[in-house]
Amino acid sequence: MKLYDLTASGNCYKVRLFAALAHIDLELVGVDLAAGEHRQAPFLALNPLGQVPVLVDGSRVLRDAQAILVYLAGAYGGLAWWPSEPAAQAEVVQWLSTAANEVQHGLCAARLVDRFGYALDKQVALDKAHALLAVLDGHLAQHDWLAIGRPTIADCAVYPYVLLAPEGGVDLGAYPHVQRWMSRIQALPGYLPAE
Amino acid sequence: MKLYDLTASGNCYKVRLFAALAHIDLELVGVDLAAGEHRQAPFLALNPLGQVPVLVDGSRVLRDAQAILVYLAGAYGGLAWWPSEPAAQAEVVQWLSTAANEVQHGLCAARLVDRFGYALDKQVALDKAHALLAVLDGHLAQHDWLAIGRPTIADCAVYPYVLLAPEGGVDLGAYPHVQRWMSRIQALPGYLPAE
Repeated sequence: MKLYDLTASGNCYKVRLFAALAHIDLELVGVDLAAGEHRQAPFLALNPLGQVPVLVDGSRVLRDAQAILVYLAGAYGGLAWWPSEPAAQAEVVQWLSTAANEVQHGLCAARLVDRFGYALDKQVALDKAHALLAVLDGHLAQHDWLAIGRPTIADCAVYPYVLLAPEGGVDLGAYPHVQRWMSRIQALPGYLPAE
Repeated sequence: MKLYDLTASGNCYKVRLFAALAHIDLELVGVDLAAGEHRQAPFLALNPLGQVPVLVDGSRVLRDAQAILVYLAGAYGGLAWWPSEPAAQAEVVQWLSTAANEVQHGLCAARLVDRFGYALDKQVALDKAHALLAVLDGHLAQHDWLAIGRPTIADCAVYPYVLLAPEGGVDLGAYPHVQRWMSRIQALPGYLPAE
């Protein structure tokens, strides 16, 4: 299986982290975003949205980190990471949506400004980042993991941009329950640090 | 089952539309966002993010339209709408992420500005809206439905804000395949128009 990857991308790290935790082998194929490779025809044929990561497994091509997590967990990772009951799946999907929406437009956007010079509204991103962190901290004050009482792809989808928050100027000092959750993730067997 | 609902919300319409198509009864509970009800303790206890829709089914409480679609389809709607194979689920989840991210921050955001006076960057929203519509149109030139060759919750998650695009100043005239897909959805038995 090939993962079209950018080392610095938190969205790609979601997939690399989960693959490490679930002992799934991935062949990493670097995509040179700085050179605009994601805007050229060969890559757009894999993902017309022009985003990494993309997973290629035989004839199957999947875009979007959250969808790739569902596929890898369901096909290779076992029910521990992605359950089969609808209510449990929905509890996980709540956080996949949060990763695609609030995390992307808060924590991730703030980092895109500071680390990569994107012309986004930094204050809007910071406001969204802290609003989400407050909700996360409240949730994690009562739960060890984001969903269904155990580590799942929900944690893998949300954790990377929380870990990378300081690169966007977001201090996690006010969120002790978030920090303890991060420590729990980092203590999982097979944990892969961000590069 | 209770759906905490706002009539004008496209995110709530995703759930109402699917429930109509799948013959699932919902008791609608109006949330008065204009009066700030979503920012008050009783509602925040249901969803700390302060967003509609929220589904309450017995002791189960779910936020996020996409997660609610997974739950309703999985628990009540049958495999037609939400398949059980990981690869098929992932194909659907690609579009659930698109609904939570690109649709929300493009088509939905443009409408929030025009219809509800939100202080968002309208040009950014319009650019994202048209970028996504171009990708959608290309996809729908080759597929009748967004995922797995049949109507699924993927279509229900993306369709509402496409339908409501003109309320955000987005003309769909340049996207004929999107328009034909909309007609196919509108021809499904049980289809519920937006209010």
